[in-house]
Amino acid sequence: MAKKSKQEKGVNVKKKDDFSEWYTQVIRKAELMDYSVVSGCMVIRPYAYEMWEKIQSFIDKKIKTLGVKNAYFPLFIPESLLKKEKEHVEGFNPEVAWVTKTGNTKLSERLAIRPTSETIMYDSYKKWVRSYNDLPILINQWCNVVRWEFKHPMPFFRTREFLWQEGHTVHATKKQAEKEVLSILDIYTQVYEDLMAVPMLKGKKSEKEKFAGADYTLSVETFFPDGKAIQGATSHFLGQNFSKAFGIKFTDKDEKVRFAWQNSWGLTTRSIGVFLAIHGDDKGLIIPPKIAPVQVVIVPIIFEKTKNEVLKEAKKLKSELKSFSIKLDEREFYTPGWKFNHWEMKGVPLRIEIGPKDIEKKQVIVVRRDNSKKIVVKNKDLKKKIKELLDDIQKSLFNNAKKFLNNNIMEANNFNDFKKGIKNKNIVYAPWCGLKNCEELIKDKSGGAKSLNIPLNQKNLKSNNKCIQCNKDALFHAYFAKSY
Amino acid sequence: MAKKSKQEKGVNVKKKDDFSEWYTQVIRKAELMDYSVVSGCMVIRPYAYEMWEKIQSFIDKKIKTLGVKNAYFPLFIPESLLKKEKEHVEGFNPEVAWVTKTGNTKLSERLAIRPTSETIMYDSYKKWVRSYNDLPILINQWCNVVRWEFKHPMPFFRTREFLWQEGHTVHATKKQAEKEVLSILDIYTQVYEDLMAVPMLKGKKSEKEKFAGADYTLSVETFFPDGKAIQGATSHFLGQNFSKAFGIKFTDKDEKVRFAWQNSWGLTTRSIGVFLAIHGDDKGLIIPPKIAPVQVVIVPIIFEKTKNEVLKEAKKLKSELKSFSIKLDEREFYTPGWKFNHWEMKGVPLRIEIGPKDIEKKQVIVVRRDNSKKIVVKNKDLKKKIKELLDDIQKSLFNNAKKFLNNNIMEANNFNDFKKGIKNKNIVYAPWCGLKNCEELIKDKSGGAKSLNIPLNQKNLKSNNKCIQCNKDALFHAYFAKSY
Repeated sequence: MAKKSKQEKGVNVKKKDDFSEWYTQVIRKAELMDYSVVSGCMVIRPYAYEMWEKIQSFIDKKIKTLGVKNAYFPLFIPESLLKKEKEHVEGFNPEVAWVTKTGNTKLSERLAIRPTSETIMYDSYKKWVRSYNDLPILINQWCNVVRWEFKHPMPFFRTREFLWQEGHTVHATKKQAEKEVLSILDIYTQVYEDLMAVPMLKGKKSEKEKFAGADYTLSVETFFPDGKAIQGATSHFLGQNFSKAFGIKFTDKDEKVRFAWQNSWGLTTRSIGVFLAIHGDDKGLIIPPKIAPVQVVIVPIIFEKTKNEVLKEAKKLKSELKSFSIKLDEREFYTPGWKFNHWEMKGVPLRIEIGPKDIEKKQVIVVRRDNSKKIVVKNKDLKKKIKELLDDIQKSLFNNAKKFLNNNIMEANNFNDFKKGIKNKNIVYAPWCGLKNCEELIKDKSGGAKSLNIPLNQKNLKSNNKCIQCNKDALFHAYFAKSY
Repeated sequence: MAKKSKQEKGVNVKKKDDFSEWYTQVIRKAELMDYSVVSGCMVIRPYAYEMWEKIQSFIDKKIKTLGVKNAYFPLFIPESLLKKEKEHVEGFNPEVAWVTKTGNTKLSERLAIRPTSETIMYDSYKKWVRSYNDLPILINQWCNVVRWEFKHPMPFFRTREFLWQEGHTVHATKKQAEKEVLSILDIYTQVYEDLMAVPMLKGKKSEKEKFAGADYTLSVETFFPDGKAIQGATSHFLGQNFSKAFGIKFTDKDEKVRFAWQNSWGLTTRSIGVFLAIHGDDKGLIIPPKIAPVQVVIVPIIFEKTKNEVLKEAKKLKSELKSFSIKLDEREFYTPGWKFNHWEMKGVPLRIEIGPKDIEKKQVIVVRRDNSKKIVVKNKDLKKKIKELLDDIQKSLFNNAKKFLNNNIMEANNFNDFKKGIKNKNIVYAPWCGLKNCEELIKDKSGGAKSLNIPLNQKNLKSNNKCIQCNKDALFHAYFAKSY
């Protein structure tokens, strides 16, 4: 059989020309996902799931340090339970998938597939909380949820079923709850910035954009090459809204009965799509080393005469570098050129090429995925150099993304500049009153801009700042953009 | 406030008097689970979920060594897809939960909540397999599944939603597939025997009891104190049944197109219930050290005068023993006696008691949960001794369970003895023809006995052995019992 030397069908659009088409092509061709027969639902293939496992492990470790433990609550929520918190049900009802039949039997009450688990979890919590001794309850679950949206689905970003973690905690005091909601926001920032090399804008969601049933929502947001922002994760301070609806109360130290304070917080498989979309280029994915399932791929350059010698050396290298996630592609069916393209498409941070001449010179060629630079490295320096290069790629991806984000933020102090910024596909940072109806007007007048969030540290607000749209006194600066 | 010294409401039946009542009381009182508003579905609380995480980690590591990778496929299966393999749909249809509506819209085709994922996964596999180069596909997923059974639900053993892993692999040859199906059975045996200290009977399921759609099913089975057997996990050789139904075929090395060979295999959260039910006693749970969320609990014996000194020493101990999963119960609200009962109920393998006199003598009291023995240990020997005791408890729990299992297996060579054995709540080992209708007659005539499995190594079958029931030639010996 002839060797496969022709390129696999690569991505046939440029990222800057058609971001959405580029994205959907690259994640499919790199075998990260596949469409399924169920409209709006996707298959997460092993190469992407390995990255989800790294995200899980990062977050799981951090939240366990805070004392959070994992548990599992039922997938089903009876309709009557879902309706217990008014704003909550209004927020989710239109997207609920309903089980109405089991086998051949019609159910007497239909069951929602959880769109989120506040209601089913808090129905248990009310039984578990009696005294201040029972608090805090710090529980998280890793699970699937279903929101039957009718907006255009985008793999990872918006699918009708997705995976996530949802933390649900109960506290005796408002102070404790508010402290935690911030700690979680920090963890979400870290997992994006440290693991996925994606810089984040931290802040508080507006009244209009907060979670249905929360007192307030904190979020991390970032920005895509197509000029749209995307929400990365959210941490909600629920106040006493649910504890009052569900009767989660406790006898405090002073023997008084009080309603508890609650938080919920979640990060989803959307995060995979976020970092892939940000770091890739026209050749395919670029995966940050810390989250890469394969950090280094060795491609032996094989000629019939020197085949055994080269393969032996390649195996030796693999074994020497086993502290990294390393793969030796020794498939004979494919040419080196085919393999270069294949692993570039899959975003492997470093490629090692080794041929007979390299063996003579006791060296290898190392190629960086992020900037295509070729480096000749002596065997004796290889392990140290690989470590350095991986660290440098991780940093460099983050710095480039940070630069891109910062370059796309503009300040506006009048609504004309604001509209210009939105039209130019920027994030606009502007003084604002924060009111719901004002946000609706901003959206209408600007061609679709929404508030992303309101930074927690308000540095440059002056006492005479006026709202960008309605000219009332501004309470803070907020970020605005079109968004996913 | 007065200290709580009265015992929590303990288990008020003896395990040997009413096993089922004992079990449901103990798992609830030890805070392993709670009932939910959805009939037949339960909450897995953190203390049990931590044990599931240990089971997950054990299995995940082993299957990854075999080259298996994790992935995630949709929760929903369109009705037409579920129907593609005839035996399979007949097996699962009566238990399927159906989504018929989303928001206010009726679906044009109703969606099954996965009772198992063969059909949704193989619909993707058929797209991924073209050539022998694409094989094997070795994929597993950790997820929830729903089987809306109408039998009496039992927490962990039989719930309408449960968690599991399901491995689904595709091979180029029958030989490779059959080798794997055995390797997986070994992993299931190991996770039960090594981690959970539960001995298993390995074998092949009968034609009647095999998985709907499999050529054959291998299983591990064990035995409960109430005289009923329970299936621990299954590994199915699917042959080409699904590959033919779904069109999973490949061009082989010789350029011929062949249907692939497939396996599927799963282990569920039932496993948690299995080891809890086997090892507990009238005081509550006994958790094998290797899977215990808390291996050692330190209970300080506190008097007002020596309180600070004792707490300081207890903290020092905790820090010295941090290589174990250790907990210091320093809650002032509860008396030492209350704490003893509490942690015994929760099955913690070792308790360390430390009071002022012990400090003087540079010693502590160590109490084993499995046999209540108290051991005085000098501080300097403590770390080594704890390690020895935990190892010994793990071994001893397994040996006791193994003895119990063996003592309950009896051989029968005629149907009268067979019936007597079943009536006496034994596992009966008997020569058998293996036929479906014979198994139905055995069940009817013996008051409900089913075959558990047929051991893979048939040592003592003689050429003149006749089937225990129909007197035809026996093909093998099999285990029979009443079962869950």
